[in-house]
Amino acid sequence: MLASLKQAVLEANLDLPKHGLVTFTWGNVSGIDRERGLVVIKPSGVAYEKLKAEDLVVLDLDGNVVEGNLRPSSDTATHIALYKAFPHIGGVVHTHSPWATSWAQAGISIPAYGTTHADYYYGEVPCTRPMTAAEIQGAYELETGNVIIETFRDLDPDQVPGVLVYCHAPFNWGKDPQDAVHNAVVLEEVAKIASRMRQVNPDVQPMDQTLLDRHFLRKHGANAYYGQKMGEPK
Amino acid sequence: MLASLKQAVLEANLDLPKHGLVTFTWGNVSGIDRERGLVVIKPSGVAYEKLKAEDLVVLDLDGNVVEGNLRPSSDTATHIALYKAFPHIGGVVHTHSPWATSWAQAGISIPAYGTTHADYYYGEVPCTRPMTAAEIQGAYELETGNVIIETFRDLDPDQVPGVLVYCHAPFNWGKDPQDAVHNAVVLEEVAKIASRMRQVNPDVQPMDQTLLDRHFLRKHGANAYYGQKMGEPK
Amino acid sequence: MLASLKQAVLEANLDLPKHGLVTFTWGNVSGIDRERGLVVIKPSGVAYEKLKAEDLVVLDLDGNVVEGNLRPSSDTATHIALYKAFPHIGGVVHTHSPWATSWAQAGISIPAYGTTHADYYYGEVPCTRPMTAAEIQGAYELETGNVIIETFRDLDPDQVPGVLVYCHAPFNWGKDPQDAVHNAVVLEEVAKIASRMRQVNPDVQPMDQTLLDRHFLRKHGANAYYGQKMGEPK
Amino acid sequence: MLASLKQAVLEANLDLPKHGLVTFTWGNVSGIDRERGLVVIKPSGVAYEKLKAEDLVVLDLDGNVVEGNLRPSSDTATHIALYKAFPHIGGVVHTHSPWATSWAQAGISIPAYGTTHADYYYGEVPCTRPMTAAEIQGAYELETGNVIIETFRDLDPDQVPGVLVYCHAPFNWGKDPQDAVHNAVVLEEVAKIASRMRQVNPDVQPMDQTLLDRHFLRKHGANAYYGQKMGEPK
Repeated sequence: MLASLKQAVLEANLDLPKHGLVTFTWGNVSGIDRERGLVVIKPSGVAYEKLKAEDLVVLDLDGNVVEGNLRPSSDTATHIALYKAFPHIGGVVHTHSPWATSWAQAGISIPAYGTTHADYYYGEVPCTRPMTAAEIQGAYELETGNVIIETFRDLDPDQVPGVLVYCHAPFNWGKDPQDAVHNAVVLEEVAKIASRMRQVNPDVQPMDQTLLDRHFLRKHGANAYYGQKMGEPK
Repeated sequence: MLASLKQAVLEANLDLPKHGLVTFTWGNVSGIDRERGLVVIKPSGVAYEKLKAEDLVVLDLDGNVVEGNLRPSSDTATHIALYKAFPHIGGVVHTHSPWATSWAQAGISIPAYGTTHADYYYGEVPCTRPMTAAEIQGAYELETGNVIIETFRDLDPDQVPGVLVYCHAPFNWGKDPQDAVHNAVVLEEVAKIASRMRQVNPDVQPMDQTLLDRHFLRKHGANAYYGQKMGEPK
Repeated sequence: MLASLKQAVLEANLDLPKHGLVTFTWGNVSGIDRERGLVVIKPSGVAYEKLKAEDLVVLDLDGNVVEGNLRPSSDTATHIALYKAFPHIGGVVHTHSPWATSWAQAGISIPAYGTTHADYYYGEVPCTRPMTAAEIQGAYELETGNVIIETFRDLDPDQVPGVLVYCHAPFNWGKDPQDAVHNAVVLEEVAKIASRMRQVNPDVQPMDQTLLDRHFLRKHGANAYYGQKMGEPK
Repeated sequence: MLASLKQAVLEANLDLPKHGLVTFTWGNVSGIDRERGLVVIKPSGVAYEKLKAEDLVVLDLDGNVVEGNLRPSSDTATHIALYKAFPHIGGVVHTHSPWATSWAQAGISIPAYGTTHADYYYGEVPCTRPMTAAEIQGAYELETGNVIIETFRDLDPDQVPGVLVYCHAPFNWGKDPQDAVHNAVVLEEVAKIASRMRQVNPDVQPMDQTLLDRHFLRKHGANAYYGQKMGEPK
């Protein structure tokens, strides 16, 4: 079942080591079939070089395994929470990519400093609040999803397709699994540039709103003119 | 038409990922045929691994597409402005190469700190002034070219073959597309070394003018003695 | 003798350059056969690309060579000291991997800053005290082992599978040679992230104990639920 | 003539890009035949991927070309000055390897901070004084050699096989061309670790002399015990 979604999720997972986002098995990508309400996700702790489409796990939105012999990623509950809360997203990715993870573990949101950021994220990439002891000791992975959703109470997840989980690492999403990984690569690059900017100029300020508008909208707005088809971002 | 220029522009574009200057499609190279007044440039948003010579777009200096089925790079107006203003250049390149972009987005010109810089850039690599809201909201890519040209009002673009666009990223140029990419690689290396120098020695000062003269002129002056042919820089 | 242990030690040594942990011959891995009380270790100064299983040296726990024509790693006495003091470990690795070595030579323990760390190390990765002149001028490599053991007087080496030797470099260990190398890769990644965190946020504090508990125990505790088999860490 | 020395110089030059020490043609290696008083060096500005043994240039110690159709490296006069002043060296290498170059251009000697350094360099790697305008405007490359020699007036070049030229970049040497490149790789690694140490611990001090003695002498002293043959360093 879900052969083409499985293939997309497999390829998106294999893109993680290709883009240098993961060490060992420190990452996972999922995709959703919105019509059937089913999520396909990487199994837990399986090496990318051995991963096959048939290893992927299919779950419903209550977290019940519908197909697959392996245990799903330990972060599955976070993925499912995001699919429920953010209705337009089709893929979710979690990694410990080192630059973005450094900002997350340092507990600092990444300001919109320049056009590289503005081409993909319409404002800062927020860092969640610290989780409470009760959240950590309870349904931890579900609560991780909840604290992300809380962070986006006044933000549009379609315009800011990623988050830094405090003391932990980034989650990204997109219209499909590949797009989610694309946004994760961008976030890593943006985090790297932001770190180096602050070293070169400790007093650097977030970018001008007009320039942020221009860059985000030339790629993502109704009148986008980047790429080969009008209105097709990226 | 312009088969050999197209081949040169294709190869120069393919050199961008080879030298680690680009993520995804974040870069573009163009070349000009001065006699015919035609510019060849990468199409917008096409992946390097799929790029072919026939995908390249040919435009006149008014920005009219003369040949090609794809939309040209969204930065085309900047390229054309530079060709018009800097009469000796034959190639232009724009990337978000991470070290140079960090300086650009931090809004800091790269001082001529050492001989690596002096071998290619005869003085600091300047950062443009911030663009005004009118410039950003107007013909943004053309105005980007204009602010670069303004920055070079008292500088010789043949002696300083690159610039940092404030809050954005570098543009480089050269006698042909390959030379422009060569200068972009150098700028990335120079930006990296400059960042690390400031970390090691926060009080570092620009280099001595005599040493700057010696290194630039032994490679680029009338009496250049680097390489295999007199007067042939690089 | 010990053909399968030799194979494991060989592969673990070859993993060092593969993971970017070594320059030239700056690293060595050993493994132990607890039943026979024999240690297999890399010979000194032999390049990884030429290393074969038959080059490995077998020693008893008094440091006598039992098999092998080459001189064992100059760090052999440190390895043996650790095997004697830490009864559950099956593999030891020493490298000068650059990020972890930077912390070791700077003399700073790596605090448990985030979940990447907490997934593998149950608390800070300690830096040993400076060695005395007598220790350095005496049986230096044995004393290096002793100062590590002293550092772990109140620490569990199974929960903190690595150490920074002051002014020198890291040692790591694990249940077998491959696991020791795995922990060395993690340490390098953790050291990198910690360095970048401190640059982004100089006031960063060690992570919350509850979160440290959660992450370490979901991978390593009796009720571990990461990976495919209950109770099988990693 | 000098076929085996040419082969050694060729291979040492090709090792520069392999070890990531050079961008484009920013480096050169030479070797000397002490008996005949002849130096073999890379030609100027020739790409490594095209370099062949027959391209190498042979010069006598007065700088006269004895064999070869290409112009020798523009740094030839520096190489020859070092061969004349340091009687035991058999190979010289110059690169702009980025970490070591950052220290050189920042004008800071690299202190002996830890054992990685002490395994190869018996004390700090010195940075030369700034050159005078007369030296820069005169026989610049020869004067570069002279200022290095002056820096080693009270230092043993066999124990400190490298130097940072102020505002410029490193030179390294060794018993033969391969050993010179080996020392250049070490210097780059040591410069990287030193930079990161200072970021982690801005108050870090040079290492204890006893530890420096131990590490240097276990590899290089009369009683060296690293590697496979007594007294054979590295």
